[in-house]
Amino acid sequence: MSNNKDFVKEITNIEEDFAQWYTDIVLKAELADYTDVKGFISIRPYGYAIWENIQKYTDNLLKKNGVKNIAMPVLIPESLLQKEKDHVEGFAPEVAWVTMGGGEELEERLCVRPTSETVFSTMYSKWLSSWRELPFLYNQWCNVLRWEKETRPFLRSREFLWQEGHTIHETAEEAQKFTLQILDVYADVIENLLAIPVLKGRKTKTEQFAGADATYTVETLMHDGRALQAGTSHYFGQNFSKPFEIKFQNREGKEEYAYQTSWGISTRLIGAVIMAHGDNRGLKLPPRVAPIQVVIVPVAMHKEGVKEKAEELYNSLSEKYRVELDVREQYSPGYKFNDWEMRGVPVRIEIGPRDIEANKCVVVRRDTAEKIDVSLDELSEKLNEILESIQKNMYEECKKNVEQKTTVATNMDEFTENLNNNQGYVKTMWCGDAECEEKIHELTGAKSRCMPFEQEKISDKCVYCGKPADKMVVWGRQY
Amino acid sequence: MSNNKDFVKEITNIEEDFAQWYTDIVLKAELADYTDVKGFISIRPYGYAIWENIQKYTDNLLKKNGVKNIAMPVLIPESLLQKEKDHVEGFAPEVAWVTMGGGEELEERLCVRPTSETVFSTMYSKWLSSWRELPFLYNQWCNVLRWEKETRPFLRSREFLWQEGHTIHETAEEAQKFTLQILDVYADVIENLLAIPVLKGRKTKTEQFAGADATYTVETLMHDGRALQAGTSHYFGQNFSKPFEIKFQNREGKEEYAYQTSWGISTRLIGAVIMAHGDNRGLKLPPRVAPIQVVIVPVAMHKEGVKEKAEELYNSLSEKYRVELDVREQYSPGYKFNDWEMRGVPVRIEIGPRDIEANKCVVVRRDTAEKIDVSLDELSEKLNEILESIQKNMYEECKKNVEQKTTVATNMDEFTENLNNNQGYVKTMWCGDAECEEKIHELTGAKSRCMPFEQEKISDKCVYCGKPADKMVVWGRQY
Repeated sequence: MSNNKDFVKEITNIEEDFAQWYTDIVLKAELADYTDVKGFISIRPYGYAIWENIQKYTDNLLKKNGVKNIAMPVLIPESLLQKEKDHVEGFAPEVAWVTMGGGEELEERLCVRPTSETVFSTMYSKWLSSWRELPFLYNQWCNVLRWEKETRPFLRSREFLWQEGHTIHETAEEAQKFTLQILDVYADVIENLLAIPVLKGRKTKTEQFAGADATYTVETLMHDGRALQAGTSHYFGQNFSKPFEIKFQNREGKEEYAYQTSWGISTRLIGAVIMAHGDNRGLKLPPRVAPIQVVIVPVAMHKEGVKEKAEELYNSLSEKYRVELDVREQYSPGYKFNDWEMRGVPVRIEIGPRDIEANKCVVVRRDTAEKIDVSLDELSEKLNEILESIQKNMYEECKKNVEQKTTVATNMDEFTENLNNNQGYVKTMWCGDAECEEKIHELTGAKSRCMPFEQEKISDKCVYCGKPADKMVVWGRQY
Repeated sequence: MSNNKDFVKEITNIEEDFAQWYTDIVLKAELADYTDVKGFISIRPYGYAIWENIQKYTDNLLKKNGVKNIAMPVLIPESLLQKEKDHVEGFAPEVAWVTMGGGEELEERLCVRPTSETVFSTMYSKWLSSWRELPFLYNQWCNVLRWEKETRPFLRSREFLWQEGHTIHETAEEAQKFTLQILDVYADVIENLLAIPVLKGRKTKTEQFAGADATYTVETLMHDGRALQAGTSHYFGQNFSKPFEIKFQNREGKEEYAYQTSWGISTRLIGAVIMAHGDNRGLKLPPRVAPIQVVIVPVAMHKEGVKEKAEELYNSLSEKYRVELDVREQYSPGYKFNDWEMRGVPVRIEIGPRDIEANKCVVVRRDTAEKIDVSLDELSEKLNEILESIQKNMYEECKKNVEQKTTVATNMDEFTENLNNNQGYVKTMWCGDAECEEKIHELTGAKSRCMPFEQEKISDKCVYCGKPADKMVVWGRQY
């Protein structure tokens, strides 16, 4: 079994070097790989299958909310990007420019979309005429480019895949309500599919999306106590509809500008799954999003009837679950056990000659390493329970991590001490001044995650300046 | 009812100006719209929903064939594009170049992918080591850019959406077999989902994909008798694996280059559906791909109980079919009938006070305009039959069009006359000389569609040069 130990050793210890552990998992579990272009990754089949499961679940929820999918151009003329001032300031520095096409220099350079507010706004202005047509609830699943300096697979890459929804509404109230409705969709995806608890709240002005009136966020906390912004939903008011002239005739027959929202989640969520759940054995996938929920590893495969029985199990379980059968001849069962654990498969089924004789198999949970003898007659039913139990347990474990790593601070000494001991979320009161926010970031490296919807009164003074404060903010160092 | 006539008049007559008719349908049925960037379209919800249905059907078939999805970078370094000579010659003139990123000039310019053989080959070379890992059967659903001079929504746009599959295999035989296996998938999609008969065959050398050893195609014929290449599957041999060093240790322990394929279908298929089936009433969608299969239009909606009954129908039918309920108050039933016919919805249900009294409704077929009284108790079951019958009838109608527009020519006079009378496919013998092919194109405007798998012996001489010929080629003017 020395072979197996060697295998596990290849992954950096999660407590010693979390960043290197993360990279090891991404590469060794074959989720993604680096390419010839800096900051651009290739998402491999196993990683992409996670994304497909996220897409399917999210798309279904969006459609239930009345959202329809469309496709917009990948290139945006420079003049269009410049129409909304805050927006161009926010994005222009990090775009990629197409300057030549079909062998000729272009008259106007085109940027590869970093986000598509400007394009949707232009088309909405063309398509909208009456209040009767509203709302437009459109979304696209696509790739976007942001020329980041520091890159990291899934978390911050120059190209990423996402969905970007853009809606326009008749009234401000309706648009605001929809912004929050989508935040609930994201919370559903992240909590129920990915088994990661979220902190819901509103971003401070400093952290708002370029061009938005309000940005709402679902924040998550990783194994190492760093925060990750997992999804955002923005309310624009008429900030885009005015420069882009998205006008309609309202119920009173008067011309009015539409009220707008946008919102997105991305392949960054794959990074969240890795970092929220993984351990020293490797990746740990929640059953609902796992491309392979159950792997069958026959033991003593050369013995008569073993491979056949394993195939029989595979065929019957495949009707209900996403199953893999590992009959690779060049590897030992021990190697396979470690390999599939490293790849985060929630349940492993071991079946050998003695199991077959006893009409049973051994079910091994990835989350607890528990081994359970299960009668083959009850296997299919029992698996359902076990997978649900894993899903629930992973969420609970993750929640425990958040609770352990959430602290309260009433002054900057406490703040710094808490963060240095614990990383994690620090709750404080804040006066609302952007300068205090900036100073806190300089001193601690932490940024405001959000002003949570569930406010608590910790004290009545700003943690930084000591002036009266009635907002509770959650802070954290971020990915 | 003058209102209705006016409405239909807005679409150009299909026999008078097919090109303008096509544009009318694209815009008025809200399938797509032009954007601010020439040659780039926005695919609107109704058009995109067709694409989603094509994706779902195709993706399912590909997965049954063992194909897995992945994501590759959208940008390709110039040096990479240049590694395979024929390939770069074919694509370099029509790419778009990114020369700036993050505010700085790039050291090497990057093209927006026109197709991704070079990227897949690079990664395959990195990932492959042993014959045991083969085959790699990977695919991506993505956008690509080709800087075409003449553009047309769906048919030829500078950006389009597609799937591109790229596989590598242990042996030439296996790769060749897989190339044809995928051609069968495409034939399935186009015939069974889109109700368009295909002509399967091999492309001549002139028409081959840049870098391929063999290109296979599924060709289709549009209403006006012009041909449309609907999907292609390429066998590369080792043309890419050698320059890109996609090597593996074979069963004999020796180093060998892999055998490669690639294949794709695109949003062009939406254009095919429009042009193969449409008529003077507008778009005509096959039920299996139609985003809305059944539209319910209440008649005398203000009368008591009508709207409620229509809603009841909507709720019960929605369990089985893709249904729309049209209760827009600003339009008359007559307007709605025409509107939904123009949008190609296969079945319309009319229900008014007298229908309700008689416990029935009127089902109207988009393909034949037939009106059928159906008891409400039998409606759900009956609809299934009617939709299947429409699907079948649309395929048969389309097939009839192909048969009527397919002719045989043994000399160039016949060839020209046939084409001028009929457009359509012209079958001839061909000696295999690319020069004859070129001359035929100059004289007639027709290109070789393919050398069909089902060969016929029409004569023993080349239609152009009169020299001995044993290949039958099908020719046609193309989109």
